Amino acid sequence: MQKYNSVSGKVIYQLKEIVGDKYVYTDNEKMEPYSHDEVAGSEYMQYPEVVVLPETAEQIAAIVRLANENIIPIVPRGAGTGLSCAAVPFLRGIVVSVERLNKIIELDTTNMFIVVEPGVTTDYIQKTANASGFLYAGDPSSGDSSFIGGNVATNAGGNKAVKYGTTRRQIYGLEFVSPQGKIITLGGKCVKDTTGYNLFQLLIGSEGTLGIITKIYIKLIPLPEHSMNLLAIFPDLVSAIQTVPKIMSAGVAPVSVEFMDNLVVQNCEDFLREKLPHSDDGYYIIVQIEGNNEEVLEDQCVTIDEICMASGAITVLVADSSKIWKARKCVAEADRARSLIFASEDLVVPMSAVSQAVQKVVEIGKKYGVRVHCAGHAGDGNVHANILKEDIPEDKWHEIVPQSAKIY
Amino acid sequence: MQKYNSVSGKVIYQLKEIVGDKYVYTDNEKMEPYSHDEVAGSEYMQYPEVVVLPETAEQIAAIVRLANENIIPIVPRGAGTGLSCAAVPFLRGIVVSVERLNKIIELDTTNMFIVVEPGVTTDYIQKTANASGFLYAGDPSSGDSSFIGGNVATNAGGNKAVKYGTTRRQIYGLEFVSPQGKIITLGGKCVKDTTGYNLFQLLIGSEGTLGIITKIYIKLIPLPEHSMNLLAIFPDLVSAIQTVPKIMSAGVAPVSVEFMDNLVVQNCEDFLREKLPHSDDGYYIIVQIEGNNEEVLEDQCVTIDEICMASGAITVLVADSSKIWKARKCVAEADRARSLIFASEDLVVPMSAVSQAVQKVVEIGKKYGVRVHCAGHAGDGNVHANILKEDIPEDKWHEIVPQSAKIY
Repeated sequence: MQKYNSVSGKVIYQLKEIVGDKYVYTDNEKMEPYSHDEVAGSEYMQYPEVVVLPETAEQIAAIVRLANENIIPIVPRGAGTGLSCAAVPFLRGIVVSVERLNKIIELDTTNMFIVVEPGVTTDYIQKTANASGFLYAGDPSSGDSSFIGGNVATNAGGNKAVKYGTTRRQIYGLEFVSPQGKIITLGGKCVKDTTGYNLFQLLIGSEGTLGIITKIYIKLIPLPEHSMNLLAIFPDLVSAIQTVPKIMSAGVAPVSVEFMDNLVVQNCEDFLREKLPHSDDGYYIIVQIEGNNEEVLEDQCVTIDEICMASGAITVLVADSSKIWKARKCVAEADRARSLIFASEDLVVPMSAVSQAVQKVVEIGKKYGVRVHCAGHAGDGNVHANILKEDIPEDKWHEIVPQSAKIY
Repeated sequence: MQKYNSVSGKVIYQLKEIVGDKYVYTDNEKMEPYSHDEVAGSEYMQYPEVVVLPETAEQIAAIVRLANENIIPIVPRGAGTGLSCAAVPFLRGIVVSVERLNKIIELDTTNMFIVVEPGVTTDYIQKTANASGFLYAGDPSSGDSSFIGGNVATNAGGNKAVKYGTTRRQIYGLEFVSPQGKIITLGGKCVKDTTGYNLFQLLIGSEGTLGIITKIYIKLIPLPEHSMNLLAIFPDLVSAIQTVPKIMSAGVAPVSVEFMDNLVVQNCEDFLREKLPHSDDGYYIIVQIEGNNEEVLEDQCVTIDEICMASGAITVLVADSSKIWKARKCVAEADRARSLIFASEDLVVPMSAVSQAVQKVVEIGKKYGVRVHCAGHAGDGNVHANILKEDIPEDKWHEIVPQSAKIY
């Protein structure tokens, strides 16, 4: 492995020259938030030697060149809402936070594009688009605090990916600082651009390893006028999950098809201190549809209701949007409230294999005597399995987690 | 540049061992169809030294390894319906045709995937999907003869890309033979797969330079039950094109928004020997919408009609689907009938710049005294400009074409 150098006093001085004294942090108190992401546990934490907060692509380019000259590792960071330690500086060195690149550069309503810097929150982009009658279709559960730069760097999925695809599908161009410290723009507002290799799509999901994103060209779509949410409650896991492919092929083009197992429903109920329907024994499938015609949505609700009831649902309810999504989006937070330490697994399988995958996960949990909570995006075969440490002793936990991971 | 070797008698013998005697062509008569694509003109033609027709990925891998060992250039080929010479073996060597890899491997209706070999025609995939109630959304104008392998290798766009995106958006996995002659599978039936770099998307659009595609995982969508086509006719170019962004942001999610300038309308009329409406002075915008509810489609037609009339349309007609698309899809063929030699340019600009781009192209045509036909996918900012040679003398033509290209 490449031998890296430590950050010298001279490098600190040079970093201060690039971004200004107040945007260079070297004391641990100030660096603590930059030493971990949303995963708790000391093994997932590492302090950098220095944190810098540039404001422009040019400053980032200068930082990258400086790091290259001095052979110092560099880790770009968005809002730190990740769960896979992509923003944790395990080799120490320099953390480059994009939090000051937080401007919406342009809202182009004619071409239906929004051009933003990486430090804008996903939620703010959504609200800005909505205010002009457009939809930004990226919707990760962490969207109220995650940065769009992190969404792009990790190709975030989320609740609307079933209909609109993951983050990569909304992106048509990037400006980024290359590992050599050059500012490069690829793509832009051309919707169809098939000349040459599509390199900017390669950057999406590369978690900062191929460059530091400094500007993002996002395609918007006209905002649907209406949306409806159905909550179908099933008596068991298998009948719940096996309904999903039937909904997906029914021609209703759902925006979301989400799953919550019964343990998750109960845990969210405890966390929110709000009664959730059939929480004693129900497995949830949440279906969101949207469109411009209310009658069509009502017809689609009837179709979905019929499919779910024919597949063994206990009941199908028209759900209050804010209430049901509050429950769905609090899953990780509720798990954290129950057990600060948990292993967060992110399974992706073909849609038809979701039922089998979830059953296998539950079985593994039982074998090792750990509590496993499954919920996720059943419509695109993506299930989150949170394995809770609770009061399992530290040494036993470290023995269990890698073994259960091996079986996946 | 790498110095390549010629194909020796020994290599021909080894190729015959790999694919069988009858699938190795070395005489010019048999190799002629493999010496060019759809572009006419001797400068766009080159005979390979040998054409091989393998039947499996393993055979292709063996051919690639053989070519590597002997330092012989290799060019993969689909149906040869391209217009940019990607399949023309300018360095001679070996052409590998995938025409015998022509099987549909699997139609998975539960996960809504079709898995195919590269030599299946786009049209056959569409028909197979339709027969089971699904839609394959790729729809290049050459679809009745183009191979899906070529669509993927060039990231073909087409008439439905406005709503469904180009070919890359339909693809979730590829098997391919690497330049080292290894068979590699990336992706598959997982709709959401964001682990690691997305390398198979890099292959899409790489025109055979990064590998030879041998298997393709294509996502299908439920087939919309109804579709409608509107033909809006405008008195001039600018009012026609400037209507497009208004249609795009109206929330009707059109499948196609196509443009044909008046010269193109007249030329297609002549070619088809069928009267087209307002062919004497009309500029066409064709809008296709689709969905499961006829009333909604009718409402959307009213919306589109109102937008077009308010933007200066002469008339808006509900068009006969087969007739209007026959006209739209015959553009290149009609141009070829008028002038066997023509330069086919493929412009992509932001949607708002289409009008300016087309006007500029027409202006350049006038400056050089050449006939220019513009038509294309206005909804995604992609315009085809065919510059017709007609009776311009050969030497003058070769002087004009590069000059006009420089101005783009």
